[in-house]
Amino acid sequence: MTGLGRKVDHIILEALKKGSSPGFLSSLKYPFMAGGKRMRAALVIVSCLSAGGRLQDSLRPAAAIEMIHNYSLVMDDLIDRGRVRRGKPTLRVKAGDSTSLLVAMYYREVLDEILQMSARRSNVRRIAVEAMMDIIDGERLDLLFEQAGREEPYLESKRIKNPSFSQYLTMIGKKTASLFKAAAEVGGEAARGNPAIVRNLAGFGWNSGLAFQIMDDVLDICGIGTGKEEAKDIVEHKLGNAAILVALRYMTPRQRTEFLNILRTERVSRVLAQRARLLVTQTPAEAECREIAKAYLRNAKEHLAGLRESKHRRSLELLSDLIVSRKL
Amino acid sequence: MTGLGRKVDHIILEALKKGSSPGFLSSLKYPFMAGGKRMRAALVIVSCLSAGGRLQDSLRPAAAIEMIHNYSLVMDDLIDRGRVRRGKPTLRVKAGDSTSLLVAMYYREVLDEILQMSARRSNVRRIAVEAMMDIIDGERLDLLFEQAGREEPYLESKRIKNPSFSQYLTMIGKKTASLFKAAAEVGGEAARGNPAIVRNLAGFGWNSGLAFQIMDDVLDICGIGTGKEEAKDIVEHKLGNAAILVALRYMTPRQRTEFLNILRTERVSRVLAQRARLLVTQTPAEAECREIAKAYLRNAKEHLAGLRESKHRRSLELLSDLIVSRKL
Repeated sequence: MTGLGRKVDHIILEALKKGSSPGFLSSLKYPFMAGGKRMRAALVIVSCLSAGGRLQDSLRPAAAIEMIHNYSLVMDDLIDRGRVRRGKPTLRVKAGDSTSLLVAMYYREVLDEILQMSARRSNVRRIAVEAMMDIIDGERLDLLFEQAGREEPYLESKRIKNPSFSQYLTMIGKKTASLFKAAAEVGGEAARGNPAIVRNLAGFGWNSGLAFQIMDDVLDICGIGTGKEEAKDIVEHKLGNAAILVALRYMTPRQRTEFLNILRTERVSRVLAQRARLLVTQTPAEAECREIAKAYLRNAKEHLAGLRESKHRRSLELLSDLIVSRKL
Repeated sequence: MTGLGRKVDHIILEALKKGSSPGFLSSLKYPFMAGGKRMRAALVIVSCLSAGGRLQDSLRPAAAIEMIHNYSLVMDDLIDRGRVRRGKPTLRVKAGDSTSLLVAMYYREVLDEILQMSARRSNVRRIAVEAMMDIIDGERLDLLFEQAGREEPYLESKRIKNPSFSQYLTMIGKKTASLFKAAAEVGGEAARGNPAIVRNLAGFGWNSGLAFQIMDDVLDICGIGTGKEEAKDIVEHKLGNAAILVALRYMTPRQRTEFLNILRTERVSRVLAQRARLLVTQTPAEAECREIAKAYLRNAKEHLAGLRESKHRRSLELLSDLIVSRKL
């Protein structure tokens, strides 16, 4: 399945080469060369195939969606001062903050160029722009859910100190699910699918995306040996994590105060992070979050009932299983 | 003339309101409320009128071009850690770096939406995207012309230590003239002008933009009481300044070494900056740069010969005079 996503690589590299200055190219290529599972690209491709479209027609929209993802990752690493991504130094470590910013801005233009040659160009463009607006607003909310660590007037004055699970869902809907939705949707558009098919694919992508982010949150706090920095969200003061929000409901008032005090500590030590982690893992939060994710996954698959039975439709189900089990 | 540019303000504010989160809006509006001369918007409008188009048709492309300009300013202030812009605190001071970045990214999406309703949409989109790619690459070159002040691997390894005037022209062509060119060009497209008219307007915008940037550079080093921080380019280690590059030719080897040593000092004190400034102002650099700018301005006006004589064509000439004399 990852092999499918990789089919966009030559389109991306060609688009980056075309018209860029030679001295800029290696920085432009770096985030793509550093790895990535291309699962959003795979989602576009399989969605297109399952709507009866041709592989060839899905590749450009798939490349554009993958580029939106990388655009947001490079910007995220700037915002979070991220040092490691995909097991390698981030672009900002490799090249510097200014260059990173210029690379991300350049991605935004290149993806526009790629979209110009897609089927149903104007629909696809609209879907892409709406997804990017959502990602930006979702990132803003994610930052507002942070409880310390940044001396920034806007964030400090608008901080959300006690987010509800529903506010959390709004945030991950924008930050994460919107791009999964867009991926499945442009797959349907690339196949020139009818409105009902495109709508079903959108619903499939949206629900898969919610399930994905909830599992991502669970793994951040409860996962061991996933190659991720452990409890990164706690170290980064983030309250916008499903496992944390569910666990808070199970804690005693005293535990809750202890946990939130750790999250609000300017520099969270390894010991404190492990203590906060324990306060989460000793609740049933992990199991409950897995159930929530599974429910979204079932929702996702129900949207596929509207699609014609085919091996591609089964691939789509498989893809969502892999995405959520994080085996892709 | 500024009044003309202000006609885009309601389009910009409406577009920012539409679909954005209420809690985000005041940050989105701030850079526009903080002022700005809207001269690029005025250039679109007058170009459209002089090509026989209607005011109404020019306003959306003008709003989009003005938004590209503000997109690049907010990003520039992030890169240069700028604290004052248009006599007021920059958005990054007012709201913080993360919010600033998200605002700029949001501008990029909003301007796409504005362009969707423009005449000759696909031409206008192409012109806008090419201008943005140029601006990004121009900013990259401008950073490579800096001689100190950033510990960034890419910039340190690729630094251009001895830029030629021709390399400088390439840099300002991308960084500045490309958007002036795009402004005049989309004005012509909005008027549904024939290819020759659009080409002439593009030439007019391009040459006006080069003249503008050269004068901007001169004012930075030689201007007094312009409200700008004096000799900002020297403090920021920038060798990509017309007055500096011309002055270097007139300096003795010893003066040149002294000047470059100041530019390469990690923290340039006020005293050092004034000394470096004197090394420039005691050469004929200012007069020579003014001559170069005037020559580009003449070039610009020659491109207008292909346009029908009208009061709008005369407005365009006047506009370019105002732009370059910095009275707009």
